[in-house]
Amino acid sequence: MKPMGPIPAWFAQEEGMLIVGGCGAASLVDEAGDTPLFVYDMDIVEAQVRRFRAAMPEVLHLHYAIKANPYAPLLARMGTQVDGFDIASGGELEMALAAGMAPDRISFAGPGKRNDELEAAIFAGVTINLESEGEGRRALAVADNLGKAPRLAVRVNPDFDLKGSGMRMGGGAKPFGVDADRAAALARAMIDAGADWRGWHIFAGSQNLDPLAIIETQAATIALAARLSDDVGASPPLVNLGGGFGLAYFPGDERLDIRPIGVALDSALENLPDILQGSAFAIELGRWLVGEAGIYLTRVIDVKVSQGETFVVVDGGLHHQLAASGNFGTVVRRNYPIAVANRFGAAPATEPVTVVGCLCTPIDRLGDKVALPPVREGDLIAIFLAGAYGASASPAAFLGHPSPRELLLG
Amino acid sequence: MKPMGPIPAWFAQEEGMLIVGGCGAASLVDEAGDTPLFVYDMDIVEAQVRRFRAAMPEVLHLHYAIKANPYAPLLARMGTQVDGFDIASGGELEMALAAGMAPDRISFAGPGKRNDELEAAIFAGVTINLESEGEGRRALAVADNLGKAPRLAVRVNPDFDLKGSGMRMGGGAKPFGVDADRAAALARAMIDAGADWRGWHIFAGSQNLDPLAIIETQAATIALAARLSDDVGASPPLVNLGGGFGLAYFPGDERLDIRPIGVALDSALENLPDILQGSAFAIELGRWLVGEAGIYLTRVIDVKVSQGETFVVVDGGLHHQLAASGNFGTVVRRNYPIAVANRFGAAPATEPVTVVGCLCTPIDRLGDKVALPPVREGDLIAIFLAGAYGASASPAAFLGHPSPRELLLG
Repeated sequence: MKPMGPIPAWFAQEEGMLIVGGCGAASLVDEAGDTPLFVYDMDIVEAQVRRFRAAMPEVLHLHYAIKANPYAPLLARMGTQVDGFDIASGGELEMALAAGMAPDRISFAGPGKRNDELEAAIFAGVTINLESEGEGRRALAVADNLGKAPRLAVRVNPDFDLKGSGMRMGGGAKPFGVDADRAAALARAMIDAGADWRGWHIFAGSQNLDPLAIIETQAATIALAARLSDDVGASPPLVNLGGGFGLAYFPGDERLDIRPIGVALDSALENLPDILQGSAFAIELGRWLVGEAGIYLTRVIDVKVSQGETFVVVDGGLHHQLAASGNFGTVVRRNYPIAVANRFGAAPATEPVTVVGCLCTPIDRLGDKVALPPVREGDLIAIFLAGAYGASASPAAFLGHPSPRELLLG
Repeated sequence: MKPMGPIPAWFAQEEGMLIVGGCGAASLVDEAGDTPLFVYDMDIVEAQVRRFRAAMPEVLHLHYAIKANPYAPLLARMGTQVDGFDIASGGELEMALAAGMAPDRISFAGPGKRNDELEAAIFAGVTINLESEGEGRRALAVADNLGKAPRLAVRVNPDFDLKGSGMRMGGGAKPFGVDADRAAALARAMIDAGADWRGWHIFAGSQNLDPLAIIETQAATIALAARLSDDVGASPPLVNLGGGFGLAYFPGDERLDIRPIGVALDSALENLPDILQGSAFAIELGRWLVGEAGIYLTRVIDVKVSQGETFVVVDGGLHHQLAASGNFGTVVRRNYPIAVANRFGAAPATEPVTVVGCLCTPIDRLGDKVALPPVREGDLIAIFLAGAYGASASPAAFLGHPSPRELLLG
């Protein structure tokens, strides 16, 4: 048997049926019409937002990085929950605007912005987080053509990283932002060229479960923003402190306690260096806001035994949930939390089973030798933590299976 | 500097421009309208088919596993090149029929076939490679409803594997097929139930570059098919020997020489056990037929330096070419062959560069510290071996960038 990650505490059962947003999993499938199905519970998202607001300084802005889950109905609801959207492409710009977010609360990061994307962003009045001097030059040229002062922030590749992150975004040579020692010069050049300088974007890492590492990084980020602003000789309107709040996906992971982060940040914002006294501060979060709110439901097509090992074959797979198969930025495959939705909470069988997707490839493995209650054809398998980087971050066309359905509750 | 895989020998340059299908890469981009662009050269596919026919016994059937590249114009052309299509879903069934392939030359494998897929396949008269006893029961029930005798083969999980394969499909407990010791009983049960038994599907592994391993596996496969057929007491109409022919993607890989495989297979088919004397034999290939024929072209958006390391940022990325980023079934990331298309064959610069995609994630890396000629904004980067498991096997919706364009030449 191999362990799985912890099932988020939001979910209960009634008569053995997993309940999401007050509804049984099987009824949700009926409502959606078929499996595979992503269900997102907006109540859980809103509870996460409340948890954030309760723990963090009141003045801190909360941004949603829409790449985590751009499902349109969810995005429209998120717009009322957060103070801004972070986007990463021209396509996401359209989604953000369609969701009703005001352009001056949208910021656009991404290392390879094409000129047509810069043009759309400047035309809309969105803030562009500049990733290089070259992008700064291109943005100015595009803005000049449009006859508009561009809103430009500078993304900084910090000279430190967020220790223990799932994904490091700073420290060492990186494709993101400009190195800290060149950031002030870029900001100054943009100001001198007539741009509306919006401040700093400093993102040191993501998917972190260690509050102390996040606290340390936020302190270093504020100190770096102050030093760079001093070098520029101007106060930044906004300092985007990045994100980094992780989720407990895997065995042994413990849920991140954000309260000490809030306490430390409160104290940091109370004792700001002079140059940052008038600045606003933001944290941008994607997966932390929406990841736990999502469940991927897939139906058991077959239960078969091969050489003494039991395989549960489902109608979903890595074409919808690539990350859960261990093929998306992870070196060693580990099990996401997984359950039999229509036998939720039942005692596990004596023998573990391996849950595989319907794709004809050996890498389509959703649960490796996991302890589940006895599984039968027609059962519903639930994979948790499916609210972020699921449907939109998987190779949906691979092998020609139907797209997953999506449903927003709450 | 880190090495890259070998550039396939099909490609030359004219005045420094990479030539594909007789056209310069830049003209192809003009023709398609924009980057990122997948170009597939049908002449290369047809040359691979000829190479196969020349090396293999004349009676051997060649099947195309369409999951490798289901681009409709390519599929339509493939139908005239091969003896059958192998499909892996109801969606691929529709694609295969739309491409004009006769149903009795289509076979359907895949561990999680839904009832609606079985129904469509049996209705169309396609051969179903049964993956389990349960699937056999479901197929019979569906066929009974349709009032049709289903064409059923049995997929066998062989008691050996293809040594040194990129992907092992047999040997040990597997989700594919039924264990060899239960295969004959399943075939017998299907025959007794009135099904049109089509024979065996035995797939021991894929992406293999060792001719001796493939020869050994094919011999074992034929022996297993004979033993199972004796147990059934019937000659199989077709023995599908699986595939396994690999491509040289990575540093140190040597192109597979299929000639010794043909010689060994010729001798094996000349000396068949009695029960297989009347049987047809097939090999199913996907990536080997189309992989080398494809190139992914993406434009340089930015060239930037971070802490002494040069990053080339392109407008494509892992959302189109997941495998090249090292996030699709590989444990250690290695470099696919990559070149500057508009400076093809030029001497490399003294310092290596890292080619990253436009996605705002550190895993979007297409070439890690590779030796390329000096690269400038606007240049075209070519990633080779993009004809298989590229466009259709990548998370196209991730981060909201445009879909890649595709172009078939030849």
